[in-house]
Amino acid sequence: MSDVQAFAQEVYDRCQQLAQFSQSKRHMDRRYLTTEHFETNLQVSRWMEQAGMFSWQDEAGNIWGRYQSDITEAPTLIIGSHLDTVPNGGIYDGIFGVVAPISVIQYCNENQIRFPFHIDIVGFGDEEGTRFGTTLLGSRAVTGRWQDHWQNLTDEAGISLAEAMEQFKLNIDMVANASRAEHDLLGFFEIHIEQGPVLEAESLPVGIVSSIAGAKRFNIKVTGKAGHSGTVPMAMRQDAMVACAKMVVAIEQLAKEHDVVATVGRLTVQPNAVNVIPGDVDFSLDIRSESDEKRDFALAQIQHSLFEISQSSGVSIEWHQTHAAQATACAPKFQSLLQESIMKEDIEPLTLFSGAGHDAMEVANICPIGMLFMRCSGGISHHPDESISVEDTAVTLKVLYNLLTLLALSPTMSADDT
Amino acid sequence: MSDVQAFAQEVYDRCQQLAQFSQSKRHMDRRYLTTEHFETNLQVSRWMEQAGMFSWQDEAGNIWGRYQSDITEAPTLIIGSHLDTVPNGGIYDGIFGVVAPISVIQYCNENQIRFPFHIDIVGFGDEEGTRFGTTLLGSRAVTGRWQDHWQNLTDEAGISLAEAMEQFKLNIDMVANASRAEHDLLGFFEIHIEQGPVLEAESLPVGIVSSIAGAKRFNIKVTGKAGHSGTVPMAMRQDAMVACAKMVVAIEQLAKEHDVVATVGRLTVQPNAVNVIPGDVDFSLDIRSESDEKRDFALAQIQHSLFEISQSSGVSIEWHQTHAAQATACAPKFQSLLQESIMKEDIEPLTLFSGAGHDAMEVANICPIGMLFMRCSGGISHHPDESISVEDTAVTLKVLYNLLTLLALSPTMSADDT
Repeated sequence: MSDVQAFAQEVYDRCQQLAQFSQSKRHMDRRYLTTEHFETNLQVSRWMEQAGMFSWQDEAGNIWGRYQSDITEAPTLIIGSHLDTVPNGGIYDGIFGVVAPISVIQYCNENQIRFPFHIDIVGFGDEEGTRFGTTLLGSRAVTGRWQDHWQNLTDEAGISLAEAMEQFKLNIDMVANASRAEHDLLGFFEIHIEQGPVLEAESLPVGIVSSIAGAKRFNIKVTGKAGHSGTVPMAMRQDAMVACAKMVVAIEQLAKEHDVVATVGRLTVQPNAVNVIPGDVDFSLDIRSESDEKRDFALAQIQHSLFEISQSSGVSIEWHQTHAAQATACAPKFQSLLQESIMKEDIEPLTLFSGAGHDAMEVANICPIGMLFMRCSGGISHHPDESISVEDTAVTLKVLYNLLTLLALSPTMSADDT
Repeated sequence: MSDVQAFAQEVYDRCQQLAQFSQSKRHMDRRYLTTEHFETNLQVSRWMEQAGMFSWQDEAGNIWGRYQSDITEAPTLIIGSHLDTVPNGGIYDGIFGVVAPISVIQYCNENQIRFPFHIDIVGFGDEEGTRFGTTLLGSRAVTGRWQDHWQNLTDEAGISLAEAMEQFKLNIDMVANASRAEHDLLGFFEIHIEQGPVLEAESLPVGIVSSIAGAKRFNIKVTGKAGHSGTVPMAMRQDAMVACAKMVVAIEQLAKEHDVVATVGRLTVQPNAVNVIPGDVDFSLDIRSESDEKRDFALAQIQHSLFEISQSSGVSIEWHQTHAAQATACAPKFQSLLQESIMKEDIEPLTLFSGAGHDAMEVANICPIGMLFMRCSGGISHHPDESISVEDTAVTLKVLYNLLTLLALSPTMSADDT
C-alpha cells in the first residue's frame, strides 16, 4: 500500500471531523438515534460513496457501504465498528474502526484492486448502550438477535426506543430486515483502539486479538455490625469495612495468581460516618479472562477465600450475579493472517486478549470474527484524553490492506487454508 | 441504701417519661433550645424540687438543682449529664445521668442524710451538638469557655443560636453568667451508659472510667489511576481501592498490636463504577486511646505503614487532620472511691476507658472529674434499640449513694486522702 501517510492523515482528520456531531457542546457525546447520529451516518455514507462503495442505512440505523466483488455470488466480509460514544468520551473508540477501512477501500478503488469477496463496511449505531441502557443494539439487529420488548426501553427524557426510531425515520417493526444472519458471510473484522496500556508498554503500534474476554459481575454484600468508633474494642468488632478490605486484597492476589483480571470498582459503606464502625459494605466484582475456564477457576478460589474471610471476621457475605458473558474466540485464520500481515511491516506480532466488550463479540453469533488492536496513548479510552497517532494509523491501514490481500488468496475461514 | 428497687423503677420510668418530649413523632429527637428541651427542663426541675432541691435554669438553658449542705461555705460537687439526644437516638444516653442522681438525692432527703458539700445536679442542654453543629454547648457555658462567635451558628432552618436563645427566653449576652469556673468545686461526677459492649461481655452492671480517650481524626486521600476493568492487566494497575484495602488491613492490625482503637468509618470511591478501576479513594481515620502517648505512637506506625503501602502500590497519599483532642484522666480519688463503692455491693470493680466523648471531658477544665459507666444492652447507643435494665439501675444508684457517703468522710479530691 503506497502513499499510506496521506490516507492515515485523512483517517485522523475524519475522526476529528465526526467529533463535531455531539449532543453536548462541552464534551463528546453521541448516542443512538439522535440528530447527531443521523448527521454522522450522512457524513460516513458520503465518504463511503467517495471510496467507490454503495451506501445504505439499515432498519436499525446502522450505516453500510458495499465494495462489490466482481464475483456476484462471492461471500461477504464485514468490516466495522460503532459510531456512538459514551458521554464525555473520546473520538476514536469505535469510530476509528469505521473510518479507517473506508480509506483502505478508497485506496483499493483508486488502484482498481478488487477482491473475491464483497466487503461491507458497517458503522453500528449503538454499542455503548448509553441511551437506552442496553448495549450492542446496532450489532444485535444485524445478528437477528434484536428483542421485541426493547421497543419499550426509554431514555433519560422518557422517549421510548420505538419513538426514537420513528423520529429517526425508521420503523421498529422492520428491524428484523437489518439481520444479516442468513447471508453468506466470510467473517467480521473489527479494528479498535486497545483501551489498555499493553501495546504502549511493549512499544508496538498494533496487536492481534486472540479472544474477547467474557466478564462475570457480582454485587457482594458484607454485613457486620455498626458500632461507636470509640467504645467498641478492636477484638469485639464485626467491622464490615475491615472484612471487605481483606477481601479486596485477596481478590487482587488471587487474580494475579490465576492470571485473570478482577476489579472492585464500586464500593459503598453504611452508615459511612467518621465515628461509626461500618455495619454494611456493598461492592462490585468484575472478573474477566480470555478463557471462561480460567476465569471460573479463579472465581471459585475467590469465592472460597471470601467465605473464609467472612467467617474469620464475624461478618456475613451474600453474592448476587449481575452479569455473565462467555469469552468469544477470534477465528484462528484471522489471527494467523494478521500475524503475517503485521510481520510484513517488520513489526513483532503480539497477541493479546480484549478485556473490553466489542461489536465483534455479538457478530460472532453469525460468523467467524477477527480483531486488530491499535495502540492508544496511556491506554486511555472513554475520556476526552483518548488519543492516537497518525504513524500508528498508517501501520494499521497497511496491516488491514495486507490482511485483505492475503485473505484474497484463500477466501475461506477454515484454519487449514492458512 | 434501702428500698432501692422502687427508686430504680422510678428512674427507669422517668427516662421513658422524658421520651415524650421529642421534636419527631417517628423517633427520639430532642435538640438544644427547642420547645421539647424547655418542657424537659420543666419536668426535671419538678423532680428536683420533689427531691428537696432548689432548682433553676442557667443562662445557657442548662437545668440545675441544689441539695444544700448544712455547711454554707462547703465546696460543691456537681453531678450530671445531658438531656439532649441525637436524631433517631435512644432515651438513656445522657438522660440517665441526670435522672438517676435525682432519685439518690430524693432518698437522702427522705432519710435526712446531708453531706459536707453542696450537691448540684445539672442537666446540660447540649452535648451532642446536633442542632448547631458544635458539641458540648451546655457544659462549655458552665466552664466559661463559651465562644462569642457561636451566636452566628445556625440550625437546619437557618435559625441562629442567638435567635434560638431568645425564643427560649434567654439572653445570649448573659451566657457568661452560667460559668461555674470561679466557684469552689469539689469535682464533677457523671454517670453514663457505656455505649460499648465491654461490661456486657464481662457480665458486670457498672464499671469505673479511668479516662476519656482523646481522638485524632484524619481524611486520607489515595490517588491512583482510573482505567478500564477489562483492559488494564493486574500488574500495570495503580488501583486506589486495592491500595486503600491494604491500608485498612494495616490500620486494623497495628491498632490491635498497639492496643488502641482505630476506625475507617467513611470511605468513598471515584468514579465508583463496576467497570472502572478506582482512581481515587478518600477515607477517614479515627484513632483513640486512653493515653495520648500510646495513641500517637500507634499513629506514627500507621503513618509509616500507609506510606510504604502507597509506595509499593504506585499511588500517592495525602493526610489531612480534621480533629485532635487530648485524653482526659479521671481523678484518682474518684476512681478509688468508686472501687470501694462497687466492691461494697460485691461486684468486681472493673476499670475501663471511655472511647466516646462526654460532658465530663469539658468540665475537667475547671475541676476534677469522675465517671461511672452502666451496662447497656448490646453496647448499643444513639439508636432506638438503646436499652438498660432496672436491676443495673438499682446497682448504679447504690454505687452513687456509696460514693457520696464515702466522699463525705473525706470531702477533698487529693489522692492522699483516700
